[in-house]
Amino acid sequence: MCGPSYVNEETKSRIAAWNAQRHQVSMSPFGDDDQIGMLNLITPEISASMLARADTARIFDLSVDLFPEMPTWTAGGEPPYQIWMNHSPSGSVVDDPIGVGAEQNRLVAWSADSISMFTHCGTHVDTLNHFGYHGEIWNGFTADKHLGSAHWRVAGADTHPPVIARGVLLDVATAHDVTVLPDSFAVSVDELKATISRQRVELQVGDVVMIRTGRGATWPDPDLYLPREPGLDRAGAAWLAEQGAAMIGADNIALEHLPSADSENWLPVHTYLLAEAGVPIMEVVELESIAAEECYEFCFVGACLKLRGATAGPIRPLAFPLRL
Amino acid sequence: MCGPSYVNEETKSRIAAWNAQRHQVSMSPFGDDDQIGMLNLITPEISASMLARADTARIFDLSVDLFPEMPTWTAGGEPPYQIWMNHSPSGSVVDDPIGVGAEQNRLVAWSADSISMFTHCGTHVDTLNHFGYHGEIWNGFTADKHLGSAHWRVAGADTHPPVIARGVLLDVATAHDVTVLPDSFAVSVDELKATISRQRVELQVGDVVMIRTGRGATWPDPDLYLPREPGLDRAGAAWLAEQGAAMIGADNIALEHLPSADSENWLPVHTYLLAEAGVPIMEVVELESIAAEECYEFCFVGACLKLRGATAGPIRPLAFPLRL
Amino acid sequence: MCGPSYVNEETKSRIAAWNAQRHQVSMSPFGDDDQIGMLNLITPEISASMLARADTARIFDLSVDLFPEMPTWTAGGEPPYQIWMNHSPSGSVVDDPIGVGAEQNRLVAWSADSISMFTHCGTHVDTLNHFGYHGEIWNGFTADKHLGSAHWRVAGADTHPPVIARGVLLDVATAHDVTVLPDSFAVSVDELKATISRQRVELQVGDVVMIRTGRGATWPDPDLYLPREPGLDRAGAAWLAEQGAAMIGADNIALEHLPSADSENWLPVHTYLLAEAGVPIMEVVELESIAAEECYEFCFVGACLKLRGATAGPIRPLAFPLRL
Amino acid sequence: MCGPSYVNEETKSRIAAWNAQRHQVSMSPFGDDDQIGMLNLITPEISASMLARADTARIFDLSVDLFPEMPTWTAGGEPPYQIWMNHSPSGSVVDDPIGVGAEQNRLVAWSADSISMFTHCGTHVDTLNHFGYHGEIWNGFTADKHLGSAHWRVAGADTHPPVIARGVLLDVATAHDVTVLPDSFAVSVDELKATISRQRVELQVGDVVMIRTGRGATWPDPDLYLPREPGLDRAGAAWLAEQGAAMIGADNIALEHLPSADSENWLPVHTYLLAEAGVPIMEVVELESIAAEECYEFCFVGACLKLRGATAGPIRPLAFPLRL
Repeated sequence: MCGPSYVNEETKSRIAAWNAQRHQVSMSPFGDDDQIGMLNLITPEISASMLARADTARIFDLSVDLFPEMPTWTAGGEPPYQIWMNHSPSGSVVDDPIGVGAEQNRLVAWSADSISMFTHCGTHVDTLNHFGYHGEIWNGFTADKHLGSAHWRVAGADTHPPVIARGVLLDVATAHDVTVLPDSFAVSVDELKATISRQRVELQVGDVVMIRTGRGATWPDPDLYLPREPGLDRAGAAWLAEQGAAMIGADNIALEHLPSADSENWLPVHTYLLAEAGVPIMEVVELESIAAEECYEFCFVGACLKLRGATAGPIRPLAFPLRL
Repeated sequence: MCGPSYVNEETKSRIAAWNAQRHQVSMSPFGDDDQIGMLNLITPEISASMLARADTARIFDLSVDLFPEMPTWTAGGEPPYQIWMNHSPSGSVVDDPIGVGAEQNRLVAWSADSISMFTHCGTHVDTLNHFGYHGEIWNGFTADKHLGSAHWRVAGADTHPPVIARGVLLDVATAHDVTVLPDSFAVSVDELKATISRQRVELQVGDVVMIRTGRGATWPDPDLYLPREPGLDRAGAAWLAEQGAAMIGADNIALEHLPSADSENWLPVHTYLLAEAGVPIMEVVELESIAAEECYEFCFVGACLKLRGATAGPIRPLAFPLRL
Repeated sequence: MCGPSYVNEETKSRIAAWNAQRHQVSMSPFGDDDQIGMLNLITPEISASMLARADTARIFDLSVDLFPEMPTWTAGGEPPYQIWMNHSPSGSVVDDPIGVGAEQNRLVAWSADSISMFTHCGTHVDTLNHFGYHGEIWNGFTADKHLGSAHWRVAGADTHPPVIARGVLLDVATAHDVTVLPDSFAVSVDELKATISRQRVELQVGDVVMIRTGRGATWPDPDLYLPREPGLDRAGAAWLAEQGAAMIGADNIALEHLPSADSENWLPVHTYLLAEAGVPIMEVVELESIAAEECYEFCFVGACLKLRGATAGPIRPLAFPLRL
Repeated sequence: MCGPSYVNEETKSRIAAWNAQRHQVSMSPFGDDDQIGMLNLITPEISASMLARADTARIFDLSVDLFPEMPTWTAGGEPPYQIWMNHSPSGSVVDDPIGVGAEQNRLVAWSADSISMFTHCGTHVDTLNHFGYHGEIWNGFTADKHLGSAHWRVAGADTHPPVIARGVLLDVATAHDVTVLPDSFAVSVDELKATISRQRVELQVGDVVMIRTGRGATWPDPDLYLPREPGLDRAGAAWLAEQGAAMIGADNIALEHLPSADSENWLPVHTYLLAEAGVPIMEVVELESIAAEECYEFCFVGACLKLRGATAGPIRPLAFPLRL
């Protein structure tokens, strides 16, 4: 662990004890009621320090637009993003939904729309109820007790606090001198360390860590963005978690390299981070602009929509370069 | 106008010229391509100044949870917020959607969900395409040229930049010494001025102005929250716009008092602010906590979901008290 | 049992044996794979006999229109019927979704729409997976083995064959000399017998039995149609099942009288008919026209949409008076 | 025209007059209010005659199952069929939506679901508002006057009566001695005449005509079913309409051969049949079973769901061989 830690000694020792028994249990070191895991590592001190150094001269918007044709999980059968009009100016003249007559409907030209979406489309946070392992999700919650007909009743997007933290961009693609990492490339511990070394950046407890694979450069071409993605491997994820990452994101659809290298687990980084390590995930993060500026350390400000119980929360996070 | 203005002289004179002809046209002073109106008043200087003074010791979350039973426009026929599971741990064992067999599905306990929602439910921004007037929306865009089958192609939520601005809370309910303003109460210019005077706060060009009617105290009881809401009247809205408000929000469902006082316009504050004055609106803003702390001036940080073309963008804005 | 039976002796004796042990088990007398229960009682002979006597001079349409405001289960939180445009003539000119240019889009004026609906809205059949009892649905199927994430994999609407059967209308409201039965009125065995006697009609094995409560006369007023409905009671349902009913429907939203008379079962007729007796249900059946003609015996022709796995199938059944 | 006509002389002469001016106007010969066009050609006499001859010994179900993965227009951006659970047995134990407690929820094992669908998926009828031509739909109705925000207010699926008519299967694929017609094959007048001649069948006024291209044999493989479909050409459609077809269907997704042979009209058979000739269309009709039995003339019984205003109505039609 490097650099000043903003987490106090008591928390540190609890985490150390808990790290020692990771892989055996996934009970939270933050108490029986904990539903957000390592987001607890982001202390008020970290938030204060980061915001105080945020430079607004250049604000990076880390999210993509949401539109019907955007790349998402439709090939696997998940529903596409949809939008439709409930009221259009000409339609209201015909319908007169308020009962005010055609003339007023022509004057007051109302438009209103609805959307439907798989919560894991666009830029979003995966919450800790998204994957369990061995029959439990994070902190021992179970489907039998906590999964209603329509949504989980614990560990959903509504439990996520606003996240104001130190952000670190690990531009693995650039470290490899490529625009996009090769298909299915595994971002390993060595890759992470090499990128950190090249960027002269240090990880700290409570960081929001962003992995750039370069797939974001292909957005929104589904044929380039989606198949056989490069991404984090299981050991790389564990190493980041052990450094104290509070949340880990990437510029791809699933964070981890696909297909899985583990024949007994089709999404091992997800089960590890969410169910075992308590680290929320971010996906489809827009990292092209911030990478182009070589802004590797930043103030991260993001707050996902509080969809009650949802396994993911749409989010539009911002990044601010840090003043010295 | 009071206090230091962060808007430069050229912009000021353009706005003055444009103010003089408001009510006749709704062409933007910010150019033919402008789709965000008065959000342009929030200069980088304002954003920098505000963020520099933001105190993270107390972060106010100005948004509500989204859940199926929450109060929204369903009584008027708009669709409710819905959430449902696409994958549940036990369902995956039966379905085997990945083709990995029952044992792996038991190990890797996947949950994933979808939502559908009227974009004007929960805490959200109304974009400038939400209401037109006399056949045009803001800046002369028209349905004939810019409204596709499923969504507008201009002035939607995707055009909204992240908003980092000075926020001002006008707690009209408390100024009236009530928890909730009476049904259909009109928040007029005098009410606004009295509240400003009582709070010893000043409005500035580029402010995000929040009106507290007290309806937020009744959330989420639909019978108390929804009918005959107190809110801004047309003249009050115009006065705020003329002070230079960049965005105006409230703790109710429609910002303005209902039913409308204008028999020829069922939503006159909307048509005025959106189509004539170019001022986006925020609704269902959670103002109870910030009002309880009497935090009347703050750093507002909010970025709505970039739903392409949508007439509203769900948002989870944050407010930070200002350091002196 | 009265009248000629179209069911052969072997089936009869199997049913008799099975009737003797009803209430103890809900295994089908039609085999381990059976998913449609008493629809099996409708033999080819019954279908042939009925269609041969069908008089097309007067065709009764037993279904209602589907539209957004229609009465359904929304007060209990179920989603409303929705419809929206995916393509409109003017929208296509703006969108050019086919890439043929504005002129061709003006010439070829395309409209297309989508719907979403709770499967139990409008005129529909309840399939045998809609309610279980004591942890199993009809014929011993269980959620653990047969309920996927999104739908059941057995006993859904796709398993229902076209139903061509003898239909019998029991106009209980008219038998009581009222337009609509009183709120929560229980249609008991005695009521059924009295109505049968008054109408001089006989029940036969394989009948589709329609109960008219009069609530259909209030359609589509949700305040009159929905609350505290009159309907079949548990003993009445059992008696009809024991007479050999293949399917039982009504002109109300839930077939049975509400609220339930059984404090330990909030929908006892459903659990009985679907899970114990294997008798599918029909709801929101339009019986006003056929009742006005006093057409108590008819040829029923109905085939529900084959929604794979669904707990209900929308249906537009037809009734033809019988020639002598 | 061959065989006995069931349409009376007055109607015949009106249709002749109207045929003479087809291609110039699309006003209905059935009056200013007509919204169903040539369905009017199906007289009560036709319905009576057909049902009287219907042989129930073999009932053909002409519809497909609806399920999420079925081939439909998703590649063109239309939404997929979706189904999801609103209530599951285990979810109800957690949610207790009725407020009856966990024990009763375990006893009364409730399942209920919802669907959403593009109305043009699965077996369906295209209504006359689905395509216009030169700015009008059938009978001079226009979007300006009759298209609301969410749906048409004329000529929708709710206006379709139950259809009991003479059905004729034209098995063009078998006439060509192939399982499936070649990609983009145009079923022309000559093809239709050759098939009719081979089958020794005659067309009559008021017929429901089914064209078998063989694509149904590839259902539900989207790669085989969807691209470059063989189907009716414009002249073939006109010839069928002129013979008095009341409705024309096929075992493919769009009835007509694709891509269009007309560079100025991307769907010329649709605009002709729906907007000019007033002939509703059926698509995704299951014709494999009936073709295998060489049942070329039959009693067609179908009634689409009455979705108010919809451009298509899901339908589960039945076909009965005719007794001599």
